[in-house]
Amino acid sequence: MGKPGASGGLGPSAKRFVGKSVRRREDPRLLRGDARFVDDVDLHGQLFLSVVRSSEAHAHIVSVDASAARRARGVRLVITAEDIAAEVPLEQIGYHEVYPQIDDYLHPVFASDRVRYVGQPVAAVIADTPYLAEDAAGLVEVTYDSLPPVLDPQYALTDEAELLFEGQPNEAVRIVKSYGDVGGAFERATHVVKGRYVVGRHSGVPMETRGCIAEPDRGRNQLFMWGPVHTHDCQRLIAQVLGMPLANLRMKHVDIGGSFGVKGGVFPEYIMVGWAAMHLGRPVKWTEDRLEHMVATAHAREQVHEMTAAFDADGMLLALTDEIWHNHGAFIRQAEPLVSDITVGMVPGPYRVPAYDGLLHVVVSNKTPLSAYRAPGRYEGTFARERLLDQAAEQIGLSQVEIRRRNLLTTADLPFVPGMDICFEPYHFDSGDVVDHLDKALDSAGFADWEQEAADLRAQGRLVGNGIGMLMDKAGLGLYETSAVDVDPSGRIRVRTGASSVGQGIETVLAQIVAEELQVEPDLIDVIHGDTELVPEGVGSWSSRSTVLAGGAARQAALDTLAKAKRLAGEMLEANVDDLILVDGRIVVSGAAHEGLSLAEIAGRWDGWSARLAYDEPGLGAQAVYLDEHMNYPYGVTLVQIEIDPATGGHTLRRFVTSTEAGRAINPMTTRGQVIGAAAQGIGGALYEEFLYDESGQPLATSFMDYLLPTSLDVPEIDFFMTEDAPTPNNPFGAKGLGEVGLIAVGAAVAGAIDDAFGEGVITTKVPVTPETLWRRSHPNSDVDARSM
Amino acid sequence: MGKPGASGGLGPSAKRFVGKSVRRREDPRLLRGDARFVDDVDLHGQLFLSVVRSSEAHAHIVSVDASAARRARGVRLVITAEDIAAEVPLEQIGYHEVYPQIDDYLHPVFASDRVRYVGQPVAAVIADTPYLAEDAAGLVEVTYDSLPPVLDPQYALTDEAELLFEGQPNEAVRIVKSYGDVGGAFERATHVVKGRYVVGRHSGVPMETRGCIAEPDRGRNQLFMWGPVHTHDCQRLIAQVLGMPLANLRMKHVDIGGSFGVKGGVFPEYIMVGWAAMHLGRPVKWTEDRLEHMVATAHAREQVHEMTAAFDADGMLLALTDEIWHNHGAFIRQAEPLVSDITVGMVPGPYRVPAYDGLLHVVVSNKTPLSAYRAPGRYEGTFARERLLDQAAEQIGLSQVEIRRRNLLTTADLPFVPGMDICFEPYHFDSGDVVDHLDKALDSAGFADWEQEAADLRAQGRLVGNGIGMLMDKAGLGLYETSAVDVDPSGRIRVRTGASSVGQGIETVLAQIVAEELQVEPDLIDVIHGDTELVPEGVGSWSSRSTVLAGGAARQAALDTLAKAKRLAGEMLEANVDDLILVDGRIVVSGAAHEGLSLAEIAGRWDGWSARLAYDEPGLGAQAVYLDEHMNYPYGVTLVQIEIDPATGGHTLRRFVTSTEAGRAINPMTTRGQVIGAAAQGIGGALYEEFLYDESGQPLATSFMDYLLPTSLDVPEIDFFMTEDAPTPNNPFGAKGLGEVGLIAVGAAVAGAIDDAFGEGVITTKVPVTPETLWRRSHPNSDVDARSM
Repeated sequence: MGKPGASGGLGPSAKRFVGKSVRRREDPRLLRGDARFVDDVDLHGQLFLSVVRSSEAHAHIVSVDASAARRARGVRLVITAEDIAAEVPLEQIGYHEVYPQIDDYLHPVFASDRVRYVGQPVAAVIADTPYLAEDAAGLVEVTYDSLPPVLDPQYALTDEAELLFEGQPNEAVRIVKSYGDVGGAFERATHVVKGRYVVGRHSGVPMETRGCIAEPDRGRNQLFMWGPVHTHDCQRLIAQVLGMPLANLRMKHVDIGGSFGVKGGVFPEYIMVGWAAMHLGRPVKWTEDRLEHMVATAHAREQVHEMTAAFDADGMLLALTDEIWHNHGAFIRQAEPLVSDITVGMVPGPYRVPAYDGLLHVVVSNKTPLSAYRAPGRYEGTFARERLLDQAAEQIGLSQVEIRRRNLLTTADLPFVPGMDICFEPYHFDSGDVVDHLDKALDSAGFADWEQEAADLRAQGRLVGNGIGMLMDKAGLGLYETSAVDVDPSGRIRVRTGASSVGQGIETVLAQIVAEELQVEPDLIDVIHGDTELVPEGVGSWSSRSTVLAGGAARQAALDTLAKAKRLAGEMLEANVDDLILVDGRIVVSGAAHEGLSLAEIAGRWDGWSARLAYDEPGLGAQAVYLDEHMNYPYGVTLVQIEIDPATGGHTLRRFVTSTEAGRAINPMTTRGQVIGAAAQGIGGALYEEFLYDESGQPLATSFMDYLLPTSLDVPEIDFFMTEDAPTPNNPFGAKGLGEVGLIAVGAAVAGAIDDAFGEGVITTKVPVTPETLWRRSHPNSDVDARSM
Repeated sequence: MGKPGASGGLGPSAKRFVGKSVRRREDPRLLRGDARFVDDVDLHGQLFLSVVRSSEAHAHIVSVDASAARRARGVRLVITAEDIAAEVPLEQIGYHEVYPQIDDYLHPVFASDRVRYVGQPVAAVIADTPYLAEDAAGLVEVTYDSLPPVLDPQYALTDEAELLFEGQPNEAVRIVKSYGDVGGAFERATHVVKGRYVVGRHSGVPMETRGCIAEPDRGRNQLFMWGPVHTHDCQRLIAQVLGMPLANLRMKHVDIGGSFGVKGGVFPEYIMVGWAAMHLGRPVKWTEDRLEHMVATAHAREQVHEMTAAFDADGMLLALTDEIWHNHGAFIRQAEPLVSDITVGMVPGPYRVPAYDGLLHVVVSNKTPLSAYRAPGRYEGTFARERLLDQAAEQIGLSQVEIRRRNLLTTADLPFVPGMDICFEPYHFDSGDVVDHLDKALDSAGFADWEQEAADLRAQGRLVGNGIGMLMDKAGLGLYETSAVDVDPSGRIRVRTGASSVGQGIETVLAQIVAEELQVEPDLIDVIHGDTELVPEGVGSWSSRSTVLAGGAARQAALDTLAKAKRLAGEMLEANVDDLILVDGRIVVSGAAHEGLSLAEIAGRWDGWSARLAYDEPGLGAQAVYLDEHMNYPYGVTLVQIEIDPATGGHTLRRFVTSTEAGRAINPMTTRGQVIGAAAQGIGGALYEEFLYDESGQPLATSFMDYLLPTSLDVPEIDFFMTEDAPTPNNPFGAKGLGEVGLIAVGAAVAGAIDDAFGEGVITTKVPVTPETLWRRSHPNSDVDARSM
């Protein structure tokens, strides 16, 4: 156990790996085809599970007839709500205590009396091959008695709307966050600006769909499950449903082909697979197909914001109010209402908002349930707030840049602690100057030239415009992470971490951190993660937390390992520990570098036979838990220049700059990769992706024909600008979490650029902005049906 | 980490589980067919390995032609010494330092230039099915140039014998142990008694043969291997050969169908399997057949003792000398020359031998290499010593009982530390009175009546006789063991141990020990073992060490867990830790039992969220390493009454009593089971089992047709008599290791009974005594060829 901040005391001649663009160690196995994804895990004697899903958005179940499926060739088992009546439990992160009513909105493993969205599991078939399982799933006859669907989140709260849960309102939870004298501010205001802003339903769509395979050992009442991303949460929650001791359920993930939040938490399918494996005494595997992924994994976003702001005569923000309808879909799932909490808390963003009233309705509807998707709550709230600021600039007569510069947080505001909790801890902005960062970013991008260029091109009749979106992220949620460092007698060093490798490069970053503290090459370090047995306690990777928290834990474990190495070397060399220093992975006597022992030598000698003499633990290593006082708040700006093609409604992103204040980047190359990847997803949400439904609640986007993902041809060159001006005092690296920042302001900046191109003021109040919208706007008088073009 | 002896301080009303005959928790899964042996581990895509073995006892290899095998259907790979030139490393337990020359006698993975025993691996074939692999193995053409075989250990040291290793003597090592003035004693002696005693070559023959399966993860340079019994030793040694970091090689054993020592250590086949799996990137499996087991696993015993003893006029032992030829077979393997060391050290046994000269020749020959088999060295040395004592009794004119009673150790001799090392530590007999135990055992058995009965029956012309064998064992070798105890929020408690479950019931015994310290029912405890990842450091189960050492570690981990529980409960209940007591698995406030928390409740609440607040490790548990100061020395007696059928050479074991001083039996039922099982194996070595060879070095016993194992019909009712008079002060239980005692004196007692039946003095100087020998002795004048009977 180590308290944060203990110093390694590296000398000036020490090798430095932190802050260097060390190559990603994850890539060789990916590039060589040696990576192992969950569908690559095949077990001898495995059976295959196929899910029977609701074809109705909202209906009573009259009957489920599985008799034909049970008789089908190769079928071993058909399971329904009669077998598993349980619900998928929520993660215990405190929302139960505040909102006990969410327990009434939990997702059942199987629907019993009612289905609430198209795609909801009704039964599952386990058979000898995936093909036989899917064929037999088609033989399960479900008879439905339809109910009126509830789809719109504002409609859902009207008296006309059918209640999804008998005796329970469609507003599952109402979240209120407030500080300052909002009423007084509006009374004093010179300018009041209002708007309604809508963020469409889209989500993370990783290349690898979900999957899960479980191997039972019934003789020992043990189950080994591969696949779920949040291994430790899943262990706890699945063990609870299956009635197993925690230690008997081993969860492991292998390589993950993207998660982006949507694969987190427990899904009904994992419970089915585990239950069926224990029941049959055979390994059971499930691999999601793309259609299933589109309706059953997790949607995200879909919010309506009705926002009002009060400004004084100089355009200084006096107060902000926001009423938000958040369409959670059919059930409260995963870690919810976490995203809602973050949404309300993060609406003020990087601005000095003196008074704030936020109110969010957590609404249930007959759509796929929501989960956290990269930058949850920030993408939505930032879109609304930045659009409102553009509107205010227009109304007050300031430039887009100027209204922001006047209201952004600066060093003078530090620490900014307005008295509002986000995720159960006080919002605490501890370091940085957003105005300074904005100025540097604008300067670096040459934004003044962009404005001139756009004006010139518009003068030629082209639809070119610039948009600006300020962003603030919250990172490092979750308060602690674990790590262990062990030196192998071969000289290799093994780092075990509670974090997960979901593509972000955490293996590389932890290797850098430990390499620096132990003064060995990062190539000597192996990073192990995502295994509840190898890492008995851990939290996981989400919320841009891993570099800070897992990195902090790994650093502490390395320091504790070093301390033990010095102690042992002191005994072995008969030297005073205070005279020992670390040079090149060796503990040497200060001033007599030839007298020393490598870490490998110490580990090799300190086996059980040696350790027993000193009543000490054998081996050279240490475990640590790292704690953070509060979240960190990176910030930045996204600048976009767009050109619309009026002939097609298509667009070109002519310029794209995204910037962030990193505090300190452990690996600038992987930081850049993360930020640019996030920006690409932001472009998807701004211009392409939307899960649309018809009036009956049937999903219209269930394949990549209908759900448009930006391809590499659609994503422009993205410039990344980083400052490291304001390391946070809150962790030993000064680092801020950067996994999501690139996404947050894209919707806002793109929308601003579009409106700037058309020059008609703030018109774009909804994302995504599809080609059809842009074409119609380019042809205001046309009565052509765009679908027939 | 805990020093031995820390007290749990259980009150008088505490539940007691130690010392109770708790039912074996291992049995339900075995009885239900839910056990999982290594051959039950099947991996998707597995290939099968078959070994090409030498058909010659001693020959140069002229050529190995694998071309036909490589072309055979389904063959993926053929490997030979050209691929793996390495030798199987020795375990590092100190013999290298004392006898560096043993490195010249190591077993190569594959023979290259010379084969040295029938069964030695020359090549291996990996194919799609075991049948294809075996068929193709038959296609590997090995051309030999024969050399004269060396089979007899005394002949091996003559000038005529061919040297097995060029430039190296056939005496690989010479071990000398000596104390006291032997020369002076013989000068003073009234009686000098001499004999030559031979123990045949036999071994442990577990129901389950060896097996091994390995799964590679080449993307991470990791290998997961199931099967080998000594997981941690195998991890270290196999990683060394394969050039892998220790942490990347995971070893796990599942259920083990008997080991008895012969499955311990590393075998060439494990290395082949691991190498092939990494090379092919596919799981590879090898399952030994019975013929292979008979020639390739490990033989044991085969010693010639030439012993001389000096007695005074009263039959008091003055000195003992023993020259021993120990036929190790073709290579020095496993932990050798451990068995030789023990042999020389344990010859004096439970007797007050004032002066001793022991000399042992570690001899190589063209037979299967030796390993430790249950009671190694003790069975052989006890046979020689006890036969010599019977001879001395006859020569001096004392009864078999009386000559022993006069010379056995008593309380007056304590501590008996004559100044001789056994396995690198001073022989230290710390507790007990062997004479007292003998008297109690004789009394309990009614041995006086046996003598009368035998005399009466002999008077009727029947061949009935009694034999007596005194035994001393050494137990608890290995100096430390590890354990961890973790309380699951479900209330179950998980004990991880470095010991292995090889049929001895260690899971049951550890559950009892932890249950008692934590005052919960043993059924709530799960015991995990034999996995290098779950138990990062451990020693293993051999040398009757696990109850004492793994038990000591588990007890210490339980006590440390309890201490943490009290500390946490103190914080949670806001009570002084000193006021907290353990009642029924709950920490309660003394005098206010309603105020308390169960261990499960504490574990459930002390998750990461709680632990972070106190900078403490999450969870409720502790790890411990238990150390022992020295080995313990249980003792006892085996009493046998035999009747020979002169018509057939058959025998009936009319009475069989084996006794031991246990110090303290943790579980009297499993103790009894272990002792009786060992006695059955002793009967095998005394009357049935022998690996015979013909003159050319071809093994004659390669199936159960030729190698006779006693069946349940051959093993009589065995009475077990136990005293718990002399707990050792050397561990907190007072327990002595009892896994092997039942075997040690069986050869001696059976031989004594046979000679008593014939009434012709000490004639039987070799075991096993086969039916043919008995028939010939019953028909001294017959010239019938017994083989034709």
